[in-house]
Amino acid sequence: MTTFVHGGTVVSPTGSQLLDVLIDGESIVAVLQPGSTALGADLTQSADVAIDASGKYVLPGGVDGHTHMEMPFGGTFASDTFETGTRAAAWGGTTTIVDFAIQTPGQRVQDTLAQWHDKAAGSCAIDYGFHQIVGDVDSDSLKAMSELVAEGVTSFKLFMAYPGVFYSDDGKILRAMQAASDTGALLMMHAENGIAIDVLIEQSVARGDTAPYFHGTSRPWQLEEEATHRAIMLANVTGAPLYVVHVSAKQALEQIAHARGNGQNVFGETCPQYLYLSLEEQLGAPGFDGAKWVCSTPLRSRAEGHQDELWRYLRTGDVSTVSTDHCPFCMKDQKELGLGDFSKIPNGIGSVEHRMDLMYQGVVSGKIGLEKWVEVCCTTPARMFGMYPKKGIVSPGADADLVIYDPDGHTSIGLGKTHHMNMDYSAYEGFEIDGHVDTVISRGRVIVDNGDYLGRPGHGRFVKRSLAQNLL
Amino acid sequence: MTTFVHGGTVVSPTGSQLLDVLIDGESIVAVLQPGSTALGADLTQSADVAIDASGKYVLPGGVDGHTHMEMPFGGTFASDTFETGTRAAAWGGTTTIVDFAIQTPGQRVQDTLAQWHDKAAGSCAIDYGFHQIVGDVDSDSLKAMSELVAEGVTSFKLFMAYPGVFYSDDGKILRAMQAASDTGALLMMHAENGIAIDVLIEQSVARGDTAPYFHGTSRPWQLEEEATHRAIMLANVTGAPLYVVHVSAKQALEQIAHARGNGQNVFGETCPQYLYLSLEEQLGAPGFDGAKWVCSTPLRSRAEGHQDELWRYLRTGDVSTVSTDHCPFCMKDQKELGLGDFSKIPNGIGSVEHRMDLMYQGVVSGKIGLEKWVEVCCTTPARMFGMYPKKGIVSPGADADLVIYDPDGHTSIGLGKTHHMNMDYSAYEGFEIDGHVDTVISRGRVIVDNGDYLGRPGHGRFVKRSLAQNLL
Amino acid sequence: MTTFVHGGTVVSPTGSQLLDVLIDGESIVAVLQPGSTALGADLTQSADVAIDASGKYVLPGGVDGHTHMEMPFGGTFASDTFETGTRAAAWGGTTTIVDFAIQTPGQRVQDTLAQWHDKAAGSCAIDYGFHQIVGDVDSDSLKAMSELVAEGVTSFKLFMAYPGVFYSDDGKILRAMQAASDTGALLMMHAENGIAIDVLIEQSVARGDTAPYFHGTSRPWQLEEEATHRAIMLANVTGAPLYVVHVSAKQALEQIAHARGNGQNVFGETCPQYLYLSLEEQLGAPGFDGAKWVCSTPLRSRAEGHQDELWRYLRTGDVSTVSTDHCPFCMKDQKELGLGDFSKIPNGIGSVEHRMDLMYQGVVSGKIGLEKWVEVCCTTPARMFGMYPKKGIVSPGADADLVIYDPDGHTSIGLGKTHHMNMDYSAYEGFEIDGHVDTVISRGRVIVDNGDYLGRPGHGRFVKRSLAQNLL
Amino acid sequence: MTTFVHGGTVVSPTGSQLLDVLIDGESIVAVLQPGSTALGADLTQSADVAIDASGKYVLPGGVDGHTHMEMPFGGTFASDTFETGTRAAAWGGTTTIVDFAIQTPGQRVQDTLAQWHDKAAGSCAIDYGFHQIVGDVDSDSLKAMSELVAEGVTSFKLFMAYPGVFYSDDGKILRAMQAASDTGALLMMHAENGIAIDVLIEQSVARGDTAPYFHGTSRPWQLEEEATHRAIMLANVTGAPLYVVHVSAKQALEQIAHARGNGQNVFGETCPQYLYLSLEEQLGAPGFDGAKWVCSTPLRSRAEGHQDELWRYLRTGDVSTVSTDHCPFCMKDQKELGLGDFSKIPNGIGSVEHRMDLMYQGVVSGKIGLEKWVEVCCTTPARMFGMYPKKGIVSPGADADLVIYDPDGHTSIGLGKTHHMNMDYSAYEGFEIDGHVDTVISRGRVIVDNGDYLGRPGHGRFVKRSLAQNLL
Repeated sequence: MTTFVHGGTVVSPTGSQLLDVLIDGESIVAVLQPGSTALGADLTQSADVAIDASGKYVLPGGVDGHTHMEMPFGGTFASDTFETGTRAAAWGGTTTIVDFAIQTPGQRVQDTLAQWHDKAAGSCAIDYGFHQIVGDVDSDSLKAMSELVAEGVTSFKLFMAYPGVFYSDDGKILRAMQAASDTGALLMMHAENGIAIDVLIEQSVARGDTAPYFHGTSRPWQLEEEATHRAIMLANVTGAPLYVVHVSAKQALEQIAHARGNGQNVFGETCPQYLYLSLEEQLGAPGFDGAKWVCSTPLRSRAEGHQDELWRYLRTGDVSTVSTDHCPFCMKDQKELGLGDFSKIPNGIGSVEHRMDLMYQGVVSGKIGLEKWVEVCCTTPARMFGMYPKKGIVSPGADADLVIYDPDGHTSIGLGKTHHMNMDYSAYEGFEIDGHVDTVISRGRVIVDNGDYLGRPGHGRFVKRSLAQNLL
Repeated sequence: MTTFVHGGTVVSPTGSQLLDVLIDGESIVAVLQPGSTALGADLTQSADVAIDASGKYVLPGGVDGHTHMEMPFGGTFASDTFETGTRAAAWGGTTTIVDFAIQTPGQRVQDTLAQWHDKAAGSCAIDYGFHQIVGDVDSDSLKAMSELVAEGVTSFKLFMAYPGVFYSDDGKILRAMQAASDTGALLMMHAENGIAIDVLIEQSVARGDTAPYFHGTSRPWQLEEEATHRAIMLANVTGAPLYVVHVSAKQALEQIAHARGNGQNVFGETCPQYLYLSLEEQLGAPGFDGAKWVCSTPLRSRAEGHQDELWRYLRTGDVSTVSTDHCPFCMKDQKELGLGDFSKIPNGIGSVEHRMDLMYQGVVSGKIGLEKWVEVCCTTPARMFGMYPKKGIVSPGADADLVIYDPDGHTSIGLGKTHHMNMDYSAYEGFEIDGHVDTVISRGRVIVDNGDYLGRPGHGRFVKRSLAQNLL
Repeated sequence: MTTFVHGGTVVSPTGSQLLDVLIDGESIVAVLQPGSTALGADLTQSADVAIDASGKYVLPGGVDGHTHMEMPFGGTFASDTFETGTRAAAWGGTTTIVDFAIQTPGQRVQDTLAQWHDKAAGSCAIDYGFHQIVGDVDSDSLKAMSELVAEGVTSFKLFMAYPGVFYSDDGKILRAMQAASDTGALLMMHAENGIAIDVLIEQSVARGDTAPYFHGTSRPWQLEEEATHRAIMLANVTGAPLYVVHVSAKQALEQIAHARGNGQNVFGETCPQYLYLSLEEQLGAPGFDGAKWVCSTPLRSRAEGHQDELWRYLRTGDVSTVSTDHCPFCMKDQKELGLGDFSKIPNGIGSVEHRMDLMYQGVVSGKIGLEKWVEVCCTTPARMFGMYPKKGIVSPGADADLVIYDPDGHTSIGLGKTHHMNMDYSAYEGFEIDGHVDTVISRGRVIVDNGDYLGRPGHGRFVKRSLAQNLL
Repeated sequence: MTTFVHGGTVVSPTGSQLLDVLIDGESIVAVLQPGSTALGADLTQSADVAIDASGKYVLPGGVDGHTHMEMPFGGTFASDTFETGTRAAAWGGTTTIVDFAIQTPGQRVQDTLAQWHDKAAGSCAIDYGFHQIVGDVDSDSLKAMSELVAEGVTSFKLFMAYPGVFYSDDGKILRAMQAASDTGALLMMHAENGIAIDVLIEQSVARGDTAPYFHGTSRPWQLEEEATHRAIMLANVTGAPLYVVHVSAKQALEQIAHARGNGQNVFGETCPQYLYLSLEEQLGAPGFDGAKWVCSTPLRSRAEGHQDELWRYLRTGDVSTVSTDHCPFCMKDQKELGLGDFSKIPNGIGSVEHRMDLMYQGVVSGKIGLEKWVEVCCTTPARMFGMYPKKGIVSPGADADLVIYDPDGHTSIGLGKTHHMNMDYSAYEGFEIDGHVDTVISRGRVIVDNGDYLGRPGHGRFVKRSLAQNLL
């Protein structure tokens, strides 16, 4: 079956052009100059399906490199399953996610990856890949790191936070980085000094400072900056490429920018919550409401200017990607676990549905350019995680993952409006977006058509990924 | 007429793919997945011309943003005319140059641009644009700066060097930057403190230090770094985008990198000579031989590590473009004017023919990646100077400017070998390149075909340029 | 005659101690442990004069390294003569000033120095030295720079501001710095890009932005930062030690700090007005009132945080000295020259009387320590300008210049209160100081005695200065 | 008894002066202008003892803030006892040491301090203080930290290296820093990432890289820089003043300089071995000879330029003190424990005797000035560790600790020459010093008199120290 998307403005990281796109089956097979007759046929007629994208942007499908569907957490689970979560992602113009398989001590890495394959297989509306969390660095897991690369899992996440849960000490980190350096795999890092933070949490709770706000104050920027720098230095010793997830402190980004300026392969990810939300306004909301925005790294102080600096680092290229760290928990029964003690609140914010919209609003407000939007939401995540040019670019040979985005449309975020995530609240309730995801195509199939959802569980396939493609 | 380039690997700044390219007339009309049958016809058969690029790279034609063809200089002229210079450029895989029209005090800016149009029209083998040098910033020339933008001349160069010739003082620079800021035009700067340098030159000559080597020592890095920083600050006051030409000192690039990190629109250009050649080896050659490499900014000390740092800044993105600053003078009768007094040596090195090769050798030696090669030699110059997507990318709608580059070929640089520039010496004599420009296509026409030159004067057309397309 | 100051706490840059001080004639001859009997006599009895300093600080007399007494300016003169100005200084605990002899084009440097000697001789209440302003760098003045060092004038000031008046271009600066480097003399710099500033002033006035506030906005921080960096680089080329006068922009200090971190002999001076006053509050005062605070470099924006950063740079040692740049003009007939055109307002603020008090208030408010107060107001200026240990330290062999400062006293600044400068307004009207200058001794003679002035014109002598004594 | 030291040049951090010094009993009671008759008596006659210091420097006695006398280490002990070590120190012009009491897990902090008091009491030739090593941070030791301040032990050292021995994790460090912040005590840090280093050591030995040289390569600069930065950030969170001991990597000093530039109370110590010796020359000596120089942090690569940069950081003030980290082990029976496995070599170098000489040689060679010598070896250590003005300055009220140093003398370092330490080798064998410690006075008593040792065990007394006196 052929689909012809015509009349739209195709956006790539280097620029925008009026271009027609021909899809055959699951792939893009040609990109064409509108009106050219060199190929003979009028494709608007001859194609099986013709979609008029005039006046609209045609983007590569969004790539969200950081999600946690149905993640187990203290007896409960992140509230979106692969089915509900990927459907919400599709609604929002994201056509690929990379989720995290999680190994914890006592488990074989390969077994945990197999579990995640099981959970996702047959459930997903869109394509998906896996990073592997290595919660216990030992000789077995180091060996597994090498083996998984051949299976298309080419990035491994460690934690400098959460002692007793995911935490790796610096010796384990060093060994894992050596292993990553050997294969060229990407080392992903949750960079917060969890050992020191746990002391501050204990002291905060002991003082009676138990409201959600104190989640933020017990994770000060210094301890994110510190861990970020430490990860950079350990990577420097080993030669491993390093990807720092969910950076929220401007000082942590300064460390990343500094390392990049020295030519080290260090990459920073941020998330919409760190660009839009703050310690004062959200975490500091009255009563227990702040619990909605308890995530780690925490939202940062607007008075200290983190949000503005993060937008700047997006412009300068020191932030490489924008992901969601989608990890939703409902207020009822889940977030409520931390009533009276913020340290018991499940950590996470759900926004897999809103990333493309929220970042487009940054274009509208002049914070970033149109090309940067596509770069950080689509192209660079695809390159970073070894999926280019199958993903992340509108080009022949690519998977036919497309988003038709209407700059004259409008999107109101909130429960009862555009909310398809399995959450009983929206972290962005009341946000208004000056644009709209009209059409979403996943591997040649229209799955969202102007308000109609046409996708189905199981359409999405596992993506075997290669090594990072954007190293310095 | 249609031309079908098939089987090659198309390289862009974001990656490489096996793709076929269909040209109709002067433009690329389609880029296709090899082997796809969705469009029916077998283009290798149906196209008027089919070119097999299997095993080779297919690049956008090179864009050299900095040349000085037949530039008047003290009674003589740069030895390449637009005819000889653009032919040599074509041989080397460059399909667009941006040359400099020169206004000096007493002349109307528009008149000088018209002169350059006259010189280039009918002479060029490849397309060309103009930057405008403003040698005298007054109310007339400020007004002209605004008018020229509409005529497709959107970048204006000033000099902090050469007092009494091109030099503008900081007040004039400020006014010109204000004018550039008003229209969005790009302000280009030769950033050396010429006032201080002239004192050092006078003292050097007075001391009897008159050999070519002392050209370098009388232009120390501090005075390039200083002027670069000054230009950045003046641009900061005015909001003008700034492009610093031919950066050779690592410290100047550190200033540029710092400003870019702050989110200021500052861009650095370097040239192959600063990446490969040095004060000690070339400028310090025995006798008068060093005169071959007298150019400004000067070649820098290898002991101080400038060359390695410049490669690093290419990787980090703080060098945006690689141009040649092609400004050839023959040793006989021209460079010889400075026998016994380096300050009389015409400044300039010719290398318009070798840029693509020299930079590809950086890929071979692992200093930069394949994508970076195309980025700094083709795509970013096109975006920087407002020619994208007509130039700088292999995409439908683009001018059919293509280079088929053979990574298994070989190129020996030197007189009597591949030298087509009108010079009686080669600045790169003896350099060996592990690659070869096989085929060059300019606006749909094959002008270099594996050792045969098929171009002609007058094929090249003036390119009206828009504003810079890669601002932060 | 002997004077015995006993019971006080002597403060030096390294610490404070209870110590007795014995003066014989004009010098300190001994510093003694209170209560020691090793020297026999009870000096409180045997000394000609005994002064009880119990509960008070005993400081070396203040050294103000930057004053402009009776400076000629556009047909008028700074309103304090050497007589009135040094008397006011004495009242405020300053016992040495270094004033500026001024050469302008057409004058012999030596002649201008002689004029200043004439003006000061017989007039001064306290000791004085001279810096030499070189307004015209030519071979004569370069030679004079060398000769003056032997006469005890070891520092030479150039201007990057005020084109057509004091301005030196970068070639002249380079030559003067070479001359300074040859002798080891200190090169002082007014670092603002006057060429660019003059354009902004002209444009501001042309726009009708003529109020005093626009004096500040037409001298933006970028043009101070730029000139500071430029001076540093020119000094770097030549090896000359550099002293940047009246730094007000935090970014200029960042440049100085950076150069110092690299081990370059660069020193920054600031003044109380830049620590306490601001663009918004003072220069932006209603009507023409802001004229009181028109000085260059200008007061900076408090919203941008310059004042706080300057205090920080004092703590870190990147500001070496605090001087006043005392250059008073009355509102009537003088400042009023600029009614309707800020560019006509005589530049200058008078505060020679208040420096010690204002900086002590920084101790009271916890911004600096007690030792830092003495370091930046007394000891380092003395070392910087080659007068140590005659000046700047309480030590045997030093001139007996002492201030007895009462931390339990109080000083109200303002007309009709403690104002002894020849000005019809006070720049610090209403400031309250939690301390008081009780007694001032100049070369053994009590000249201020708890509210009584006992000094006389002519007591002050010219101080022949050696080279800087605090180079890195 | 009175002693009169006359005719010498007294050196302080702010300058040098010809001054006479009168000692009465254990204290300096007066500093006098030579030749003054104001005090009547001719002290060269009337004093009990007169010492002619003409042509020589008179310094405050050296303060070595970092020694480890008879330190227990794996069944053996550092080879100098308090008796032999302080005697050697005296020979070299050091009159105060601050040694480390060591608590390890299972011990009460107070008990260990008492042990050290016992060891030192009655043994020392010169005065001594104690820092307290806290090897186990728990509620008891945190409480002890507070109590010890009142006992004159005001600085506490933690280790980021040596897991299983002295190592504290970041949570313990945070708690200890909070405790230090509460009392104002100084937190001292051995800043190396011991967890990561232990992995590298294990891998090095497993590879067969067991020679002393690999001690250096398994402790790369990145892991010193990292730990330094981490300590700085933890201190930043808590507000504790931080003193980083024995810094050897230029990058670690860059971190310290950066923090100081931000106004944080961070101080760096280095040692003569890091200024003079290197990885290549000493640790890389043939056979097992490199064991002589096995210490941690390790000697650094001269090719990487650490030594030169450390001298620069001394000049700029970013290195605050020079101590020895005196921790001697003999080759025989001690260093030899590591034959075939560098990780078994006792860590330490002995140089308590040579610090004043080695640093004076830096004055001779122009690397630092005379005042800087006294500042980093005497005055700042005294202020840093709360002993000023009793120690560190030639001033009335100070303890009469003086060194008369002859700039025309000569010192040859080596066994059988000037070696008084209890070691069977000299780390500086063959070094020649252009100066000589002639006379050493400790609390009024001459203990070294031009080649004669007149001291005795037990003369030295414990110094109760106050808090740091040189905070920003």
